[in-house]
Amino acid sequence: MPADGQIVPVETEKVDCERTKGLRYRCLIERINKRIQAGRRWFSLEFFPPRTVNGAVNLIGRFDRFVEGKPLFCDITWHPAGDPANTEKPTSSTCMAGAMLNYCGIETILHISCANISTAQIKDCLENAKNLGIRNLLALRGDPSDGSETWTFFEGGLNYAADMVRFIRKEYGDYFNICVAGYPTGHPECTSYADDLRHLKEKVDAGADFIITQLFFKAETYLKFLRDCRDIGITCPIIPGILPIQAYQSLRHIVKLSRLEVPQEIIDAINPIKDNDEAIRNFGIDHTVSMINDLFASGLVNGIHFYTLNREVATIEILKRLGMWCEDHTRRLPWKTTANHSRACEEIRPIFWRCRPKSYVHRTSNWDEFPNGRWGNSSAPAFRDLKDYYLFYLKSKSPKEDLLKMWGEELMSERDVWNVFACYISSMANSKGVKVTKIPWDDEELSPETQIIATNLHSINSRGVLTINSQPNISAAPSNDPKVGWGYPDGYIFQKAYLEFFTSKENVQALKKLLPEYPLVNYHIINHNGEADYTNCDQNEPIAVTWGVFPGKEIIQPTVVDPIAFKFWKIDIIKQKIEHTQPP
Amino acid sequence: MPADGQIVPVETEKVDCERTKGLRYRCLIERINKRIQAGRRWFSLEFFPPRTVNGAVNLIGRFDRFVEGKPLFCDITWHPAGDPANTEKPTSSTCMAGAMLNYCGIETILHISCANISTAQIKDCLENAKNLGIRNLLALRGDPSDGSETWTFFEGGLNYAADMVRFIRKEYGDYFNICVAGYPTGHPECTSYADDLRHLKEKVDAGADFIITQLFFKAETYLKFLRDCRDIGITCPIIPGILPIQAYQSLRHIVKLSRLEVPQEIIDAINPIKDNDEAIRNFGIDHTVSMINDLFASGLVNGIHFYTLNREVATIEILKRLGMWCEDHTRRLPWKTTANHSRACEEIRPIFWRCRPKSYVHRTSNWDEFPNGRWGNSSAPAFRDLKDYYLFYLKSKSPKEDLLKMWGEELMSERDVWNVFACYISSMANSKGVKVTKIPWDDEELSPETQIIATNLHSINSRGVLTINSQPNISAAPSNDPKVGWGYPDGYIFQKAYLEFFTSKENVQALKKLLPEYPLVNYHIINHNGEADYTNCDQNEPIAVTWGVFPGKEIIQPTVVDPIAFKFWKIDIIKQKIEHTQPP
Repeated sequence: MPADGQIVPVETEKVDCERTKGLRYRCLIERINKRIQAGRRWFSLEFFPPRTVNGAVNLIGRFDRFVEGKPLFCDITWHPAGDPANTEKPTSSTCMAGAMLNYCGIETILHISCANISTAQIKDCLENAKNLGIRNLLALRGDPSDGSETWTFFEGGLNYAADMVRFIRKEYGDYFNICVAGYPTGHPECTSYADDLRHLKEKVDAGADFIITQLFFKAETYLKFLRDCRDIGITCPIIPGILPIQAYQSLRHIVKLSRLEVPQEIIDAINPIKDNDEAIRNFGIDHTVSMINDLFASGLVNGIHFYTLNREVATIEILKRLGMWCEDHTRRLPWKTTANHSRACEEIRPIFWRCRPKSYVHRTSNWDEFPNGRWGNSSAPAFRDLKDYYLFYLKSKSPKEDLLKMWGEELMSERDVWNVFACYISSMANSKGVKVTKIPWDDEELSPETQIIATNLHSINSRGVLTINSQPNISAAPSNDPKVGWGYPDGYIFQKAYLEFFTSKENVQALKKLLPEYPLVNYHIINHNGEADYTNCDQNEPIAVTWGVFPGKEIIQPTVVDPIAFKFWKIDIIKQKIEHTQPP
Repeated sequence: MPADGQIVPVETEKVDCERTKGLRYRCLIERINKRIQAGRRWFSLEFFPPRTVNGAVNLIGRFDRFVEGKPLFCDITWHPAGDPANTEKPTSSTCMAGAMLNYCGIETILHISCANISTAQIKDCLENAKNLGIRNLLALRGDPSDGSETWTFFEGGLNYAADMVRFIRKEYGDYFNICVAGYPTGHPECTSYADDLRHLKEKVDAGADFIITQLFFKAETYLKFLRDCRDIGITCPIIPGILPIQAYQSLRHIVKLSRLEVPQEIIDAINPIKDNDEAIRNFGIDHTVSMINDLFASGLVNGIHFYTLNREVATIEILKRLGMWCEDHTRRLPWKTTANHSRACEEIRPIFWRCRPKSYVHRTSNWDEFPNGRWGNSSAPAFRDLKDYYLFYLKSKSPKEDLLKMWGEELMSERDVWNVFACYISSMANSKGVKVTKIPWDDEELSPETQIIATNLHSINSRGVLTINSQPNISAAPSNDPKVGWGYPDGYIFQKAYLEFFTSKENVQALKKLLPEYPLVNYHIINHNGEADYTNCDQNEPIAVTWGVFPGKEIIQPTVVDPIAFKFWKIDIIKQKIEHTQPP
């Protein structure tokens, strides 16, 4: 089990989720404190909301890549001009935070500022965040959304971050973890550094759990600030916020906004290379690595917050140089987990959604209960209707022209369709020389384990058995196997062979004749209207198709064929089929 | 899964036991009707309560042997002179019915009669039965307990079986399945056969679920009675009650009691052999087999109730000849299940009690929840204190002299104790030539799978590692394996190696040094005071030690090492140790 997984085994407390005793949600501040106690290093990442829907799709792709390195959390800034609380607008701060948490599976902090809006509006913002499952806020006063340079008192609103912290605590108790901003050289508008420290103390006293600092350019700036905070009695974690210098213009812009003074030696170093982006980035990487090493050397820091500016190259390079980028790709479970606290106990999923983990999490987000192995009753009315299918970032990321090139501008025969599937499964180019990298039922890359059976899959797809999901049978593979491994060390992984496919009426007739000769094969057959569920499976009982045996543990069976979930998947498949067969 | 298992998979209804969705209790009448619909043959067995405690111990041994043939149910007659409702008296009707249900694991009917007792007393009797988990009653008027030959009206009581049925229904609704007696030739005291049929109809109309007939000697007697019952509108199942003639005296006695007329051809056949018990029994077997074949030939009968007179030879022989004795020794689970409805959902047990399944069921009967795999929280206060340990038929069945011969009249050294264990494990005789067939921690025969590791066990026991429980590691044995198989057909059984033993302080010190080199070995070590639980196991999480993989099913993991249950087992072991080390 990766040490950085956000879902942790229960230690002593009684669990909320009664059914699953192994797992519970542990809040962010608890996890930060745990790291501090253990002296284990960690990092977190800040992003700002994108301007366009395409930008959002790309940014989510970037989140996915960042998640591989195992940040402790990510945060999204509040963009007052971008309708930040709008949950219908894909590019809003709230929507992006929801996507980060629920689709990318990483613990998320949403910034929220109170400048120039009413407490009723703030309450709405908080409700929206809560409804998405967000449990962490960074409370700011913020700048006025009208673009005016200086802040003015707003009647009927919350005028200081400390008021905001108090308001959140009053309205939500301990539901949210609250972070506040610290200014190592004082807030640009503060009357004095000492005054600013007192304001920070007030924010913490109002109920903030931890502090992230504004950017700074020298380790000593942070370390002095830290000493000063401790001196006036601020005891909570204070996480250094670091901006890797990535480009001359962006540095100028940030410095202007934050009214920070850039040390002369940095100006001197950058000026000669200001037109060479790569050189600046390399300088930034070197400078940041060195500064972070200084911070670590103090013995007072073990977590770093990165202002990524939505870019990945520099930050990932820095993390790799520091040895903080997690190279352990062990999976906690065979499928992609979410960080949403309400799903902390989820430990089992139907195999049908294997190729679309994000769609599954989204579409089942209002289910009371998940398809399950032996606990709970899957015939109980817990599986509500699936939520509306449309969600922009679940749609294919490829433009229609690209898809047409992959799938064929013109299909002359059944065989042309078969070839699309066969090319996808074998990662081969089609007759026009275009590589088929996706099908409508699988937007992700082929999973590594599919390679194990790729030859067989290619052969049956070429003959009209159009597979959209599969897994090879696996008997006692080590739990750290790069293709099929997951779970705790020194365990063994097992899988039953599984295949999900479209095929012709004639093939179904043949199968119906043959299948009774293979009593150990379980099957569901439905037609294109979702009728005639022909099966030899129990009406309610799920079938385990993936399980793991670990030292000192129970048997964990995280993937099942669940007859109830199948009925929903059936509808889903038909809906997609209809969508994808609409004339262009 | 044996077809005759009393716990059946859920079909469509919502289950009471929320945690375990596969299993539920199905009541007796439902199961009888299911057999009738399916045309599947079955049998049931009647016993009377013993007079002495030794008799009770022997009778329970007999129940165990009968259970192997898979009767649908057993029943215990009401013995008014034997303090039948007394739950403290091992030989009472109620106690024996409780033992049959809870220790022998067979669905049980308790007879109960209302003659000459008050409704308050009857209510007490019913409460006692209910508290033991009994769900089936055979409601009788019964004979007066004062020994008087004829029945007299009892003021303030229930004077007819029909009143009794009504009373039970009024007080308990559908909680109990109710059976009533039918008299194929009329009740001895009835005014006419027709009157008696009307009384029977009244009992059924009052709420009885099914009828068992009094004994008869010719198939035609029963078949006429069945037709007459149907003619007056009795539609419930009517089960023929059959007495295999086993001895001349007992036949005479029964005939006198039931005032039945024995057909002349039987008298003629028996008279010449009346002093030859074996000949009589053989005659009885032949006669009964032939009569039952006639009943089956009618197409109207598929279940037979046997009046066993507490004897096994004749009844088992008859069942074998009829092909009704179940030869399929497939186990539903690797441990002995109980038929108590409240434990229908029990599908997991801690391994510690493996050698004492009866003691486990008894001692955990007031637990809300059982040690469990992944569902439920074993740290919840659901495991109440174990019930008082004493229960007469859990005590050793061997007299003390026999035990002394096995275990040694005099122990000269530690090594003498080691040898007792070593002899037991290898089924060998001790130095005095006496075979060691039991130890205080295991009153049953060595389980077949122990033979797989008997050589190893013998070797370590001879060197002071005194094993009291073990299982070999098993990897993918077929589920019908005669030694380790259980569960559904075509499955595979897995086990982790397990060993439970006493050993010296010195060995423990050596183990503590060695064990860290074997991280895949989990252990608990306690001293003789139950202190110092030295372990590398999780505080709460159970470890699966037995599991099965079956086609079209989830993984079933019925045996665990549960840390919470271990704490109770620890107490148990120490208590036994103290009991067994008391000076004689």
